[in-house]
Amino acid sequence: MTSKDAISHMARALSEAEGAAARGEVPIGAVVVSAEGRVMAAAGNRTRELNDPTAHAEMLAIRAACAEIGDERLVSCSLYVTLEPCPMCAAAISFARLKRLYYAASDPKGGGIEQGARIFSQPTCHHSPEIYPGIMEAEAVALLRDFFAARRD
Amino acid sequence: MTSKDAISHMARALSEAEGAAARGEVPIGAVVVSAEGRVMAAAGNRTRELNDPTAHAEMLAIRAACAEIGDERLVSCSLYVTLEPCPMCAAAISFARLKRLYYAASDPKGGGIEQGARIFSQPTCHHSPEIYPGIMEAEAVALLRDFFAARRD
Repeated sequence: MTSKDAISHMARALSEAEGAAARGEVPIGAVVVSAEGRVMAAAGNRTRELNDPTAHAEMLAIRAACAEIGDERLVSCSLYVTLEPCPMCAAAISFARLKRLYYAASDPKGGGIEQGARIFSQPTCHHSPEIYPGIMEAEAVALLRDFFAARRD
Repeated sequence: MTSKDAISHMARALSEAEGAAARGEVPIGAVVVSAEGRVMAAAGNRTRELNDPTAHAEMLAIRAACAEIGDERLVSCSLYVTLEPCPMCAAAISFARLKRLYYAASDPKGGGIEQGARIFSQPTCHHSPEIYPGIMEAEAVALLRDFFAARRD
């Protein structure tokens, strides 16, 4: 996986986040990529549209990728997401056995990787991905900042 | 909510867990109950059947209950589950704003309430339910023990 490929996949996740914002959802997007670099699934948040508190971008992308290959595990696959996953999504990433996790921005308020639950550091966590934070962080932060600023107006 | 009602709802969750075992799934069941005591949704694990690592009993029951009322929050509702929720399900319980969580057995290996991630004790957790562990614990433990013993044979 070259850096150019990683940027391309994160750009796709950011595009999904923009789509979520256009639907009035918190702008977070996620992409699952196969070992060969193929985009298996891409999704943005849909919690409001679906009336589903579990419909975070990561969850939707993981479920779609699993459905596509008919397997509950995504061994050797990577997940790209625009914001540090929450504890729910981090645990799902572990259950899905994803090999690599790339995320753009950190989330001090709700993240579950670097703060709070620190899912992958717990003795009750039985699989941890390789973690690559910070790719296209500025773009992801700007998208979230603009979304919440517009809602406050 | 009388103790008799709580036992009745946990018995329903155990029945869902037995159904999961019959399908070859890890025997865990969950029920969402309204403030008036009505069963809104009931589910057992379906991760294998659905090829979905997120298809834990709690997640399916929460999603079904939210779909039924057309709301991503289950304020004033209770969740009954036969095993201590994992971090994924605990975070979903928080997002759904469930008022009460009843669970039968503790899960030292994978639980996210009393151990490991301790989701509801984190500063990044913005809603915690009232928690009532231990109802029908012996029955839930026996069901899990028998299931895993049979698989080892």
